[in-house]
Amino acid sequence: MGFSEDAAIAAIREELGAAGCLRIDLGIGDDAALWQPSRSDRGAVSTDAFVDGVHFRRSTTALDRIGMRAMNASLSDLAAMGARPRLATVAIGVPAEFTLDDIRLLYRGIAKVATALQFAVAGGDCTASPVLSLAVTVLGEVRPSHAKCRSGARIGDTIAVTGALGASAAGLRALGDPQLLEGPLRCSALDAYELARARIPEGRWLARSAHVRAMMDCSDGLGRDCARMAQRSGLGILLEQIPVAPEMAALARATGENAEELALAAGEDYELIVAIATPAFAHLQRRFHKRFGGTLVAVGHCDAQAGVRWRRSGATIPVDRCGWDHFEVGEMR
Amino acid sequence: MGFSEDAAIAAIREELGAAGCLRIDLGIGDDAALWQPSRSDRGAVSTDAFVDGVHFRRSTTALDRIGMRAMNASLSDLAAMGARPRLATVAIGVPAEFTLDDIRLLYRGIAKVATALQFAVAGGDCTASPVLSLAVTVLGEVRPSHAKCRSGARIGDTIAVTGALGASAAGLRALGDPQLLEGPLRCSALDAYELARARIPEGRWLARSAHVRAMMDCSDGLGRDCARMAQRSGLGILLEQIPVAPEMAALARATGENAEELALAAGEDYELIVAIATPAFAHLQRRFHKRFGGTLVAVGHCDAQAGVRWRRSGATIPVDRCGWDHFEVGEMR
Repeated sequence: MGFSEDAAIAAIREELGAAGCLRIDLGIGDDAALWQPSRSDRGAVSTDAFVDGVHFRRSTTALDRIGMRAMNASLSDLAAMGARPRLATVAIGVPAEFTLDDIRLLYRGIAKVATALQFAVAGGDCTASPVLSLAVTVLGEVRPSHAKCRSGARIGDTIAVTGALGASAAGLRALGDPQLLEGPLRCSALDAYELARARIPEGRWLARSAHVRAMMDCSDGLGRDCARMAQRSGLGILLEQIPVAPEMAALARATGENAEELALAAGEDYELIVAIATPAFAHLQRRFHKRFGGTLVAVGHCDAQAGVRWRRSGATIPVDRCGWDHFEVGEMR
Repeated sequence: MGFSEDAAIAAIREELGAAGCLRIDLGIGDDAALWQPSRSDRGAVSTDAFVDGVHFRRSTTALDRIGMRAMNASLSDLAAMGARPRLATVAIGVPAEFTLDDIRLLYRGIAKVATALQFAVAGGDCTASPVLSLAVTVLGEVRPSHAKCRSGARIGDTIAVTGALGASAAGLRALGDPQLLEGPLRCSALDAYELARARIPEGRWLARSAHVRAMMDCSDGLGRDCARMAQRSGLGILLEQIPVAPEMAALARATGENAEELALAAGEDYELIVAIATPAFAHLQRRFHKRFGGTLVAVGHCDAQAGVRWRRSGATIPVDRCGWDHFEVGEMR
């Protein structure tokens, strides 16, 4: 690397532009960033790390899209709490062959997401590393009465998702196999993987309803994430319907796999998983459709049995070990 | 790695114990952590990344000390603003051979620092990575009137540091060469490197004084960091005295190098660099000594010339390119 840390920081500040100081008192360039917290809200914070070869592949995804993807994946945790983003910090580890232009392109994607949602990228770090890695911390704010945890679901609640599942996972598979999907479906699958959008407006809207009792984002697959909600809420979840994205349905047709099974295990769409008081579901669903155009899809119910089960062609089978685990796989899949 | 992400998170929660939930509403295990910000304070946030082979060497430093070091290095940025830590998040990337016990040991060090300063480790991420890496985000709070930036120094101000420099750098050199230092000085040098403490109480105390006009931490060497303060404050700094830690003095005697030159370039002691209104310096120095035992050492003055210069045996020489730059060196030195 033929550049200094100070040169990297100067390039980053330039690339961030207004996104470097949106709604904060002091941004990049001092020891810490300063902002004035909202007086009536709770602070919400989440950190996610992204490593080349584990969470993305630099060889197949452009750097600006890698930046956008890392931001959206991190913001998805705020969406799941019903919080609005206030600022983010980004630590990047860059390999030896990285240039200042590469850093600029990466931050162009990061700045795009921050500008769209009107929050600041207020700080970070830039260091040498054997592989490209990003650690993103997002800081948000949410009214105490609106904040939704994973632990609030009750027996009888309807479990719903904010949209069909599997488009992002289909995109990831398609990236690795140029023959797998064709035409517009291939494009939309790749976009779903690279540009998957954190459901910030949807999360804030849902969080305002007292009928929404628990919320989390679907980042590791519906099966796995429902198991986490069930465990934290001390109940079980019976899945009755898996909404499959058209991209994943087309992929399953092409490979002869089961589309619902793939969608159940598919991560990183960033749809929200929501536990809703069943009597209020239909009304909330109508209002959601009116507000966002998309559909809140009921996928199952909370019950008193253990774990997550899937009712499928008459039989009920336990759902375990679906979805992603970067540890066990050891590499991206 | 024979363990899942959920197993890693469970081990981390157990190791953190009380440090996982100190003074916050919701900690590790949900999508985001929640806390109630102080109503009268500004929030302060800083992120630092640490990579094996760049910022530390796993082969020579125990994992709990790596955890402590990463926390203190990150907290040092809050100390420099005069902020008190409120919570931290830690993203770790762990190599294939890492065990759950390794994760526990790393977090034992992290928890020790958090417990001592009474703040929560409220979240994070744990992912596979080719090398051990940590990204630490610290979140603090500081009264708006107390927050100190790098940009507040004025011409005529005294530049002081909170202690002698170079012990940590001497420890790093000694780690790489078992012959370099002996006996108690070797031990104290290694401890200075591995256990260098963020000056949180000192920073908060100094920040309360209106005579303290600018503050930053000495993480990349006095020469380099003074250049940053000078640049941000739009003035120059003349260094007149470099306080050398006994460990660095002994090392210089052993190698025949110049102790002051080494101390000027030595990073990661986490002493604070402070610009103080000169008429108030002597009084502040006495009060500092009474409060902390240590000495606030005057190292120079702000003036109207360009850059940082060092007056040394009668001659005045420009100080540039001293200290660390992980980019240009490409590996730890």
